Amino acid sequence: MKKILAINSGSSSFKYKLFSYPDEKVIASGMADRVGLDNSVFSLELADGTKFEEEKDIPTQEQAVQKLLDWLKQHNVIEDFSEIAGVGHRVVAGGEEFKDSALIDEHNIQKLYDLSEYAPLHNIPEADGIRAFMKILPGVPEVAVFDSSFHQTLDPVQYLYSVSYDYYEKYRARKYGAHGTSVRYVTQRAAKLLNKPLEDMKMIVCHLGSGASITAVKDGKSFDTSMGFSPVAGLTMSTRSGDIDPSVIQYIMMKSGISDFDDAIDILNHKSGLLGISGVSPDMRDIIAAEEKGNKRAKLAREIFINRLVRYIGSYFMEMGGLDVIVFTAGIGEHNSAIRQAVMDQMRIIGLIPDEQANSTNGEKIITKPDSKVIGMIIPTDEELMIERDVVRLAHLDK
Amino acid sequence: MKKILAINSGSSSFKYKLFSYPDEKVIASGMADRVGLDNSVFSLELADGTKFEEEKDIPTQEQAVQKLLDWLKQHNVIEDFSEIAGVGHRVVAGGEEFKDSALIDEHNIQKLYDLSEYAPLHNIPEADGIRAFMKILPGVPEVAVFDSSFHQTLDPVQYLYSVSYDYYEKYRARKYGAHGTSVRYVTQRAAKLLNKPLEDMKMIVCHLGSGASITAVKDGKSFDTSMGFSPVAGLTMSTRSGDIDPSVIQYIMMKSGISDFDDAIDILNHKSGLLGISGVSPDMRDIIAAEEKGNKRAKLAREIFINRLVRYIGSYFMEMGGLDVIVFTAGIGEHNSAIRQAVMDQMRIIGLIPDEQANSTNGEKIITKPDSKVIGMIIPTDEELMIERDVVRLAHLDK
Repeated sequence: MKKILAINSGSSSFKYKLFSYPDEKVIASGMADRVGLDNSVFSLELADGTKFEEEKDIPTQEQAVQKLLDWLKQHNVIEDFSEIAGVGHRVVAGGEEFKDSALIDEHNIQKLYDLSEYAPLHNIPEADGIRAFMKILPGVPEVAVFDSSFHQTLDPVQYLYSVSYDYYEKYRARKYGAHGTSVRYVTQRAAKLLNKPLEDMKMIVCHLGSGASITAVKDGKSFDTSMGFSPVAGLTMSTRSGDIDPSVIQYIMMKSGISDFDDAIDILNHKSGLLGISGVSPDMRDIIAAEEKGNKRAKLAREIFINRLVRYIGSYFMEMGGLDVIVFTAGIGEHNSAIRQAVMDQMRIIGLIPDEQANSTNGEKIITKPDSKVIGMIIPTDEELMIERDVVRLAHLDK
Repeated sequence: MKKILAINSGSSSFKYKLFSYPDEKVIASGMADRVGLDNSVFSLELADGTKFEEEKDIPTQEQAVQKLLDWLKQHNVIEDFSEIAGVGHRVVAGGEEFKDSALIDEHNIQKLYDLSEYAPLHNIPEADGIRAFMKILPGVPEVAVFDSSFHQTLDPVQYLYSVSYDYYEKYRARKYGAHGTSVRYVTQRAAKLLNKPLEDMKMIVCHLGSGASITAVKDGKSFDTSMGFSPVAGLTMSTRSGDIDPSVIQYIMMKSGISDFDDAIDILNHKSGLLGISGVSPDMRDIIAAEEKGNKRAKLAREIFINRLVRYIGSYFMEMGGLDVIVFTAGIGEHNSAIRQAVMDQMRIIGLIPDEQANSTNGEKIITKPDSKVIGMIIPTDEELMIERDVVRLAHLDK
């Protein structure tokens, strides 16, 4: 049995899952938090539910990686480092360079740093993480799995902004999208569950986490997606604004005395969305609780969240020229039946017939009636599993 | 027979139309160009097609108004100023103050200046124009007809951005929309031609001039619209970008050395859209001509223009929960059958059946087959006529 690590690095943390292959079981999972800061926390959970946690300063990403591997050995998850057959890493920005996940070596790791202009807060720690693994596990294949690469099938009509073409030619300013790994997973899973080839279907995937996006998938390929050059565009999110008239930013800056556009972008990323509208919380559960106590702005936040979803579903239905399947995934998509119901009710106009009973609970399933023209589904996403599969595929571990 | 003037003031020009009432005939029309600059040009066209033009410096808006009235007398259009029963003025920004057109007097003209924060390049010359008429034609009712007021029926769900609610409460930062006078005219006209009450219909109006917008009209009221706080948002326009991820603006600024966000907004307004993508022209006719000669960027510009329309049509169809009528109006809408055809072809999925024959020529008519579930129409817009009607209604000239 081979073992494959899936890593999701943040600016000062990383999450990990250790899979066995070919049975794709999660043997261990956990995270390293506050790496490079004081009081770093290290956690490990085994398949049987046993949990370990340790607080200890971990000054560098490399030490965190070393610590992780030592811990896995110490808790008898692995006997020797050589059991790790491959490591997969989530990377946010792959630009136009990476149209698929890719094996990373000393030769091409620089590209990840180069692409950090597109996602300065993400690509650098992610590349640092890969480099740390390359050092500690020399010879073990490292695979970068990009959030953006699934959307590289978009046509210029969908990915270009209506600005000077020079900005695209010179700087590659365009829509890249995100959540591609999740969308790829749930569309493959949906096709499997429905026993229909992905290539024959028009699908919409609503990935509704604290970062939320919606993607049109036609014939198995990303056709259009709501996140843009950056993840701030598109739907209303926990703290991100989604789509907004740039002139209203200029007006708000003028009225509230913000002189630096970078500060405005920061506000659009961190103090907007559900939090900004409601003033209550970035979390939909808190917002619904507040609405139930009569909070009008909470109600407005929920309604706007649904409205933006409905607008995009309409766009993608019309752009693709039809719709076969709509999938709800990630936090809100997997766990909020009321939001799903509200969205599906608006979709009755295109022949979707919700199954209220089925939708009233969560879990992987179909949530529309058998005679519904559009099939609605809940599919819990699993980006780490997709990463594991990409490692197997690209490092040829199945051979 | 009463005479009513409709005025459309720009920053250094104004266009006018003189109507007779109640027969709503245009007796004279023309413009004053380069007011306040050197070599001002003044023009007049009579109902019989006779044209006059004069080049003469006109240093102020007041002198331009005086000149206009003197000219009308000189050319026997009017015998005396007292024949002018009312003057209507197009005003871009009415904010939340003006939910309808309004009689303007010394008391409330200040509001128009106050609202200039929303449209600095427009409201000030417009208010100056009204003031000049008030001085030269004392006692004659002056009516302001706002581009925005028709959209005051939008629900907060549609007009709010997903940012801090404070920005709305304190600064009234929100979507205002534009082209309301045009949309009001064509929806009323469509209802009359179809002999159906406006109150029972779901309509989409594509106002496709050099500034382009799309509006969902439900039960006769504006339900959603693509222009936002400013006219830069929404569709791809001649030189305006329409919707764009604010982060890509930040990236473009960084890469191309633009330090001032105001300069970036200027580029989005004047050097983007069809002009920016094609590099050929802001005019769709030039773009199609270039495409026919094999220009790929011109093709892309046209395709993107259509795609953004299709996206919005889908959104509004889904938001309103159906669609009865789609209307094409203004420059491209009235005169470009290929664009109309491409849009309607994408709408077959919702039961629209284009009548290619009818659509191949222009003019006010139905351009879908009798069994089409959604009726497609061309309706030439007439904002001046709507202004004239608002003057009659609000100054009670019909009494």
